[in-house]
Amino acid sequence: MLPLPSEAASDLAALRRTRPLTHCLTGSPARMFIANALLAAGASSAMVASEEEVAAFAAAARAVLVNLGSVTPPLARAMHAAVAAARAAGTPWVLDPAAIGAALPTRTALATALLAAGPAIVKGNASEILTLSGGEGGGSGPDATASVAAALPAAEALARRTGAVVVVTGPVDALTDGQETRDVPGGDALMPLVTGTGCALGGLMAALLGAGVPPWRAAQTGCAAFADAGAAAARHAAGPGSFAPAFLDRLYALGR
Amino acid sequence: MLPLPSEAASDLAALRRTRPLTHCLTGSPARMFIANALLAAGASSAMVASEEEVAAFAAAARAVLVNLGSVTPPLARAMHAAVAAARAAGTPWVLDPAAIGAALPTRTALATALLAAGPAIVKGNASEILTLSGGEGGGSGPDATASVAAALPAAEALARRTGAVVVVTGPVDALTDGQETRDVPGGDALMPLVTGTGCALGGLMAALLGAGVPPWRAAQTGCAAFADAGAAAARHAAGPGSFAPAFLDRLYALGR
Amino acid sequence: MLPLPSEAASDLAALRRTRPLTHCLTGSPARMFIANALLAAGASSAMVASEEEVAAFAAAARAVLVNLGSVTPPLARAMHAAVAAARAAGTPWVLDPAAIGAALPTRTALATALLAAGPAIVKGNASEILTLSGGEGGGSGPDATASVAAALPAAEALARRTGAVVVVTGPVDALTDGQETRDVPGGDALMPLVTGTGCALGGLMAALLGAGVPPWRAAQTGCAAFADAGAAAARHAAGPGSFAPAFLDRLYALGR
Repeated sequence: MLPLPSEAASDLAALRRTRPLTHCLTGSPARMFIANALLAAGASSAMVASEEEVAAFAAAARAVLVNLGSVTPPLARAMHAAVAAARAAGTPWVLDPAAIGAALPTRTALATALLAAGPAIVKGNASEILTLSGGEGGGSGPDATASVAAALPAAEALARRTGAVVVVTGPVDALTDGQETRDVPGGDALMPLVTGTGCALGGLMAALLGAGVPPWRAAQTGCAAFADAGAAAARHAAGPGSFAPAFLDRLYALGR
Repeated sequence: MLPLPSEAASDLAALRRTRPLTHCLTGSPARMFIANALLAAGASSAMVASEEEVAAFAAAARAVLVNLGSVTPPLARAMHAAVAAARAAGTPWVLDPAAIGAALPTRTALATALLAAGPAIVKGNASEILTLSGGEGGGSGPDATASVAAALPAAEALARRTGAVVVVTGPVDALTDGQETRDVPGGDALMPLVTGTGCALGGLMAALLGAGVPPWRAAQTGCAAFADAGAAAARHAAGPGSFAPAFLDRLYALGR
Repeated sequence: MLPLPSEAASDLAALRRTRPLTHCLTGSPARMFIANALLAAGASSAMVASEEEVAAFAAAARAVLVNLGSVTPPLARAMHAAVAAARAAGTPWVLDPAAIGAALPTRTALATALLAAGPAIVKGNASEILTLSGGEGGGSGPDATASVAAALPAAEALARRTGAVVVVTGPVDALTDGQETRDVPGGDALMPLVTGTGCALGGLMAALLGAGVPPWRAAQTGCAAFADAGAAAARHAAGPGSFAPAFLDRLYALGR
């Protein structure tokens, strides 16, 4: 395990001090895990999912996560309303284009449309980032079939085109703003065996933005915190079942 | 930890003997935790959420929980149908006005409308109870920004006006029927770091009503059981991740 | 605990080798547990739930689970589209008629209609199988009120009529193809106290079908794996809370 960098510890301290209300929009089966990870890290989350509630709620939220897992048409409408309100209010938001690819053309089109509202961070696996950048991602479903390295040029182009920090998750995560690209190693092979770890990472990045951390640092600290907590949890886990609560415990303990 | 009062142990024994089918309507990300808490405590739950199914199902359920977490318009319609059917059948129900407040005016109006169908128990945090009683709750999202003490006059007025037992949750829970007001101490600071503990408490109160326990006792026993299980679980937990399964274990073991 | 039969170990090895993408359609509160169980066992799952996405996605999925837990009208439409696409593509699918019975006539009609699209396996508790076979199941909600033995004639008739392997879950599971009927003992009394264990069993059967295992063996291996992992987990669990992660750990370790 890498020790948590001091700048990540400082960002987490800011998160705990401000406890930003993070508005999460997702149909993911892991909504509960996302909420618990945000609580463990020190943020607060709300999963307002109704189109009619979203615009009014935007003023209360300090950051927004839009995760396309198990999205439905009403939820897609709520997402459009939420990012429009976030853009109008200057509230930072994270786009997680979960499972986009050739097998889900409607969702791919939704991700592309949402991109126009200017996310601060885009986080996906290699297949999702390749798809979102306009290439052939090769994914089908939640898992990447391409490598992080293969997706890096697409990630860099996407970052330059949109102004977002783009994160490509995998055995080693990579982040880029289109100029600089950095790896964040760590984590554990058990992490992808717990549904929602990737979704929760996007949520933590949003919460960090809500605490006032700039996009590059929010992306980097999110990856570092998950890598650190994941590696520590794996040392105490007998499998993916016991890994999940151990991971939340470590996320809670990080830097305290 | 306070030992579980003997009357609470007796109520839990009634719950386990009758195993009441408790109909839970909520969009909360913690639906799985609510269901697991009810199973651990000794009840059975069903999460029928379709408007067309709700009325027919009402005859089978012994109690109903209406929790406004992540409510959507179709779910709101199902809630209206469920409480109307419950009222017609004399089935007791619990209202949990989750996250109502100035940031969610539509949800606040929904809670107010549902109140007219006569819940046996209303359970919320201080901000939610202040909002429901017609005041300014100050909440935004799932967390209270007001103290339990500050919400007590509103809770008492709400109880007198509606005939419901009103529970204000917080570090020390308070319940009132408008005449008498009582505190239930206990629990642990880790509890609010596990999403759905409050929702599950409302579910347990509904299940106790379904077992034939009167509203005041159902509210008090629910709070006492959660306080007791929470305090016991915290002694075995390394953080919020390990707290959640330990809490369900203790809820299962309570009074057995 | 029975040791895992060698044919079950061989089927799980095939599952891990092929890692079949299993499309799960359900509104169950336990969606996260289903996904985690599939990941632990060695499969991959996707919970695409939008009618417009389902048909395109069918080509990517190797198997489909249709579980009627907490179904809503839009989800029911997605289920119809998914089984039609599965049938057209020759993709095997599992029907779990969760909670059908007299209290939920709309859901019972949905299960009957879906049956016409030819599931490879139908898995339910005794009340659900009795209801689906056209009898009086006596269930109300998620729990069976009839015994496995009482449902066996109905299960056998249903298997002969539909060509599906029919599984009746209970303290001892039974499976039948209408000619041969077999018991699979094992498991533990804590299993029904964790919401979604039955749903996850249907998911594992679907994943095994997706790995190329024939229906009878997929049903038998699914039951044997859950019986084995459940019995092993119970020896390490203090209650239903700690049982759930221990169960996932054991499912992950099975036969490795």
